[in-house]
Amino acid sequence: MKRWVSIWAMFACYVLMPSAFAADNTNASGPEAVRQIVASMEAAWNKHDMQAYGALFHDDAEWINVVGMYWRGKPQIVKAHTAFHETIFKDCRLEGKELTVREVTPDAVVAVWAHAQDAYKTPSGAVQEKTLNRLTLVVTKRNGKWLISQGHNVWVNERAQRSNPVNLP
Amino acid sequence: MKRWVSIWAMFACYVLMPSAFAADNTNASGPEAVRQIVASMEAAWNKHDMQAYGALFHDDAEWINVVGMYWRGKPQIVKAHTAFHETIFKDCRLEGKELTVREVTPDAVVAVWAHAQDAYKTPSGAVQEKTLNRLTLVVTKRNGKWLISQGHNVWVNERAQRSNPVNLP
Repeated sequence: MKRWVSIWAMFACYVLMPSAFAADNTNASGPEAVRQIVASMEAAWNKHDMQAYGALFHDDAEWINVVGMYWRGKPQIVKAHTAFHETIFKDCRLEGKELTVREVTPDAVVAVWAHAQDAYKTPSGAVQEKTLNRLTLVVTKRNGKWLISQGHNVWVNERAQRSNPVNLP
Repeated sequence: MKRWVSIWAMFACYVLMPSAFAADNTNASGPEAVRQIVASMEAAWNKHDMQAYGALFHDDAEWINVVGMYWRGKPQIVKAHTAFHETIFKDCRLEGKELTVREVTPDAVVAVWAHAQDAYKTPSGAVQEKTLNRLTLVVTKRNGKWLISQGHNVWVNERAQRSNPVNLP
């Protein structure tokens, strides 16, 4: 009986606490850790599980969203995301597209994650159609853990891309 | 005569090559270096001097602008900024507002710089009124120099700030 309890406990931990496992990345390289974190972020967002989402951040992390809201510290990041996932993002999902990952120092990795976000109604009631977003994440290793230090998101304006000087002759 | 030539040369270097001096920040702390870099960035932008601007970046730096254009490597960052400063940003100035600076590892600093940007005409001819932008900069020390590794900008939507969950009771 004891044996079954402990097998069940292991199973429950594995299924119910993915964020705790995601954060156990001491031996991962920076790029490996970032890929795990982005996968965990997408999963937590789509389950609207803001505790699992919050577990991916350092305590002093900051976040700037697509309309320039600036959240400082994990409690603000979790509070704001929770409020939106209980309302405007309740039925809204993310879908990962391209991910680029770059080590900028031995303890810091910068990732740029393009992802699609479903349509939703903004707090003012207007419909925000499905968007492509480009998110910069700064992931750092501190006290043996790779976690997010900074996130900054923006809407990709498709029309504006035609004027991108880098793509013009 | 020789003496005056060398004094003149020193003066000319100091006045004409601010970016070279800005980049000589080996002994600066991360936060000190970031403040110098942001001041140099504002000065270079307002002089439309994209060579001085480019000198603030590591070779592998990346930039994401307010409409989600993604520039990879210093040559792309300089090319794109030069194209815009010769056209839509020709008479457009930045004005620094709030700057927050945070060391995230010993060799990496994250800065968030709020700044106003004058009105300008977009490539499609529409008038973009004066905006408040929020820019994240990741500044890293590599080979003894603090330079920008990543920049990500966004327009601050003033109306949306009223719905910021962090400011609501």
